[in-house]
Amino acid sequence: MSKHLTKRAEDYSKWYNELIVKADLAENSAVRGCMVIKPYGFAIWEKMQAELDRMFKETGHQNAYFPLLVPKSLFEAEEKNAEGFAKECAVVTHYRLETDPDNEGKLRVDPNAKLQEELIIRPTSEAIIWNTYKGWIQSHRDLPLLINQWANVMRWEMRTRPFLRTAEFLWQEGHTAHATREEAVVEAKQMQEVYATFAEEFMAMPVVKGAKSESERFAGAEDTYTIEALMQDGKALQAGTSHFLGQNFAKAFDVKYTSKEGKQEYVWATSWGVSTRLIGGLIMTHSDDAGLVLPPKLAPIQVVVVPIYKGEDQLNAIFDKMKPIVEELKSKGVSVKFDDRDTMRPGAKFAEYELKGVPVRVAIGNRDLENGTVEVARRDTFDKQTVEQSNLVDFVSNLLEEIQSNLFNKALTYRNTHITKVDSFEEFKDVIENKGGFVSAHWDGTEETEDKIKDLTKATIRCIPNDVVEEEGTCVFSDGKSTRRVLFAKAY
Amino acid sequence: MSKHLTKRAEDYSKWYNELIVKADLAENSAVRGCMVIKPYGFAIWEKMQAELDRMFKETGHQNAYFPLLVPKSLFEAEEKNAEGFAKECAVVTHYRLETDPDNEGKLRVDPNAKLQEELIIRPTSEAIIWNTYKGWIQSHRDLPLLINQWANVMRWEMRTRPFLRTAEFLWQEGHTAHATREEAVVEAKQMQEVYATFAEEFMAMPVVKGAKSESERFAGAEDTYTIEALMQDGKALQAGTSHFLGQNFAKAFDVKYTSKEGKQEYVWATSWGVSTRLIGGLIMTHSDDAGLVLPPKLAPIQVVVVPIYKGEDQLNAIFDKMKPIVEELKSKGVSVKFDDRDTMRPGAKFAEYELKGVPVRVAIGNRDLENGTVEVARRDTFDKQTVEQSNLVDFVSNLLEEIQSNLFNKALTYRNTHITKVDSFEEFKDVIENKGGFVSAHWDGTEETEDKIKDLTKATIRCIPNDVVEEEGTCVFSDGKSTRRVLFAKAY
Repeated sequence: MSKHLTKRAEDYSKWYNELIVKADLAENSAVRGCMVIKPYGFAIWEKMQAELDRMFKETGHQNAYFPLLVPKSLFEAEEKNAEGFAKECAVVTHYRLETDPDNEGKLRVDPNAKLQEELIIRPTSEAIIWNTYKGWIQSHRDLPLLINQWANVMRWEMRTRPFLRTAEFLWQEGHTAHATREEAVVEAKQMQEVYATFAEEFMAMPVVKGAKSESERFAGAEDTYTIEALMQDGKALQAGTSHFLGQNFAKAFDVKYTSKEGKQEYVWATSWGVSTRLIGGLIMTHSDDAGLVLPPKLAPIQVVVVPIYKGEDQLNAIFDKMKPIVEELKSKGVSVKFDDRDTMRPGAKFAEYELKGVPVRVAIGNRDLENGTVEVARRDTFDKQTVEQSNLVDFVSNLLEEIQSNLFNKALTYRNTHITKVDSFEEFKDVIENKGGFVSAHWDGTEETEDKIKDLTKATIRCIPNDVVEEEGTCVFSDGKSTRRVLFAKAY
Repeated sequence: MSKHLTKRAEDYSKWYNELIVKADLAENSAVRGCMVIKPYGFAIWEKMQAELDRMFKETGHQNAYFPLLVPKSLFEAEEKNAEGFAKECAVVTHYRLETDPDNEGKLRVDPNAKLQEELIIRPTSEAIIWNTYKGWIQSHRDLPLLINQWANVMRWEMRTRPFLRTAEFLWQEGHTAHATREEAVVEAKQMQEVYATFAEEFMAMPVVKGAKSESERFAGAEDTYTIEALMQDGKALQAGTSHFLGQNFAKAFDVKYTSKEGKQEYVWATSWGVSTRLIGGLIMTHSDDAGLVLPPKLAPIQVVVVPIYKGEDQLNAIFDKMKPIVEELKSKGVSVKFDDRDTMRPGAKFAEYELKGVPVRVAIGNRDLENGTVEVARRDTFDKQTVEQSNLVDFVSNLLEEIQSNLFNKALTYRNTHITKVDSFEEFKDVIENKGGFVSAHWDGTEETEDKIKDLTKATIRCIPNDVVEEEGTCVFSDGKSTRRVLFAKAY
């Protein structure tokens, strides 16, 4: 594997694909559109999972597990949802293979083992879950029902890209049931907040919180709340969504509860999810031409110590000096790797950890031993500094916090300078085409305008921001009346 | 849902199925053979996962994720493995649904979206993983490769039972690659030890460690190391297996490495797994006619506090008194629930927590408030005791340890008194039929004898124990020569 990485300015998409392979995050598999998540990439996902799972539990949710396969008759029960996913469904039709009589040592599908009813690999689990909730909900005492599932799902997309859009992906899907519309809306908005907090505090990725326009909503939802991030190439990324589902699934699966007043009422629903797509967002928010850049809070290795030595005696002396420091860092919850591989020179190790985005590198050689110092290099700015060994633990602890906030602030500045107010369609096209980022523009609220703008510019409405200001205006495209600006962008 | 639970002596199998539903662990789903794991059952699985994952990482393994679907041509590459699983494979043949023109609002499989090559839902992942390892392994420096995956798998079994045998189940599968036969064998045996330690220390479930006879080995393995537990009804449960795969998969997928001497060599492999089946084993090791009994180390709720009160003032007084105690227990890592639901009487709560196997129940009423006491009840023995509030934290901490070891010792005594040495086939049949448990008997080592014994008694060779004593003997069935006793039992 060559260390050479395409530059972002040359070909952003190529840079992204190469980076994923070279940083050892993931690779394509033998199955169309499905990737293998390698240990280093998976370790980032595990860190994300741990924080999100904690946040879900702190907001009262419990985990459960529902079947991978959905009988077709259940899948099609909520028509809009079914229609939305029908074109991307992997379908199980048979349950057995047999020896192929025409091909020694080969197998074929046993034609006698055809299922009476086809089974769909879940593209999302509303159908199977709401069919189950029917049995769980009778009384208002059974509500709210607050459940999350960590699972794999499958959407047979035609064009796939690692992490961003894969046929199979890993995600979590929350599915909640409530007695009232108000409570369900509060839940859906709460989870949008949870996602935004996670994105900003852990991923150091600023997001705009908003609602989707009708045409961009989840199939079967009455409202979709989204967090939208901005990638370095000026394209937006939908990073997480939380849906208010109204009573659509309750009606499709006949889920009613007896209210305190003894009435039978349909239940109100939400669902919400984030996926391994977040790793794509993480990469495209912070990384650079030298490779991956990781915020310390999600870095599998936060600090790497590279000894620079000749012979085993020097290595041992460095090890003895660093061991108590490494232990102290570990006891403070910092993940540290001491890289004593003798199969690689220090320079090659430096390059490897740059590529893999390890936030802090500590190098220590013979002269450092004499001087009681080390060299500390930070990945985000490439700054290097000589630090006293006696002060290293505090220095590194502070530095990790500083890197975390520096990455967020840098991304925030970029994002904020890439929200451009426009008042004419010429300007709109110019910004979308040349500057990139979000365009804040008046829109007449019609799907027709939305479609035409998309056809002409490839930009879509990313969201109607939560903090939108109500103001009279004129649609940037149709000159029709508008009451607020919305955010457009090209998107992943 | 009725609280009445069938007694074990009446119908063990019915007791098991009812318990799972009444203790809120799981339920059947709309998909044949697939269950829904409910939050309380899933919380047990999460505790198991956390401990196992820690143990895997401590032994040097990393997690990764490989695709759910396996192209048929890869699946069939290792012939024995493919043959072993072919009859249980769910097969994806199409990737799209379309509107059914004959049925308004319904969908049908789009005949134009047939896959060129069928995809198998993984029954186990050796094929897809070894096809990937081919790209990861070139040199001896890439070895050992020590990877684990947490995943769902699917085996289309004809007869299913919750947790014990389900079409879809959750598991972990370790897949490792090594430079030498010896190292791979050491790895496979190490993981058998890890599983045994987990079973005994966390599940409080004693196991026999041993090797499988050839006919009971994993399809494609050269040796299968197993841990076998004994259920209360005298049937054995294969609780975890670790396989030495020789070079079978390396040869099927052409995975070679360059040795230190510069030679091209095939890689040696292991795989090992435990699944949600462990929850079935946990249930059938400890539970009783009153419901689930959980070892404290895996109990989602270790201690429940039930206030017995009239009116809000009493409840508040109890709450104020217990709060610091509950907090102190939590700070020691004990999971405590204070159940102040006003929709249920204390007696109903007691019954619910008995059914759900909460190890320790603390009840506190008005008189306890006056006396500075509480009533502590333990689930394993039903013993009750009055305890000073001031001493409660220490008392409960010790009690949890005592329950954990009591459960293990009880199960160990049962298991040890149910390993019966027999020297005649009459005795063999009698023990299998009437006493149950393991039968330790001489066997001539032939598959023919194994098959006949199975036909006549339904007992199979569970394992050749690791600590078997080599001794001359005569096969219990054929009178042929034998060099050691092996363990037979009826099994799940």
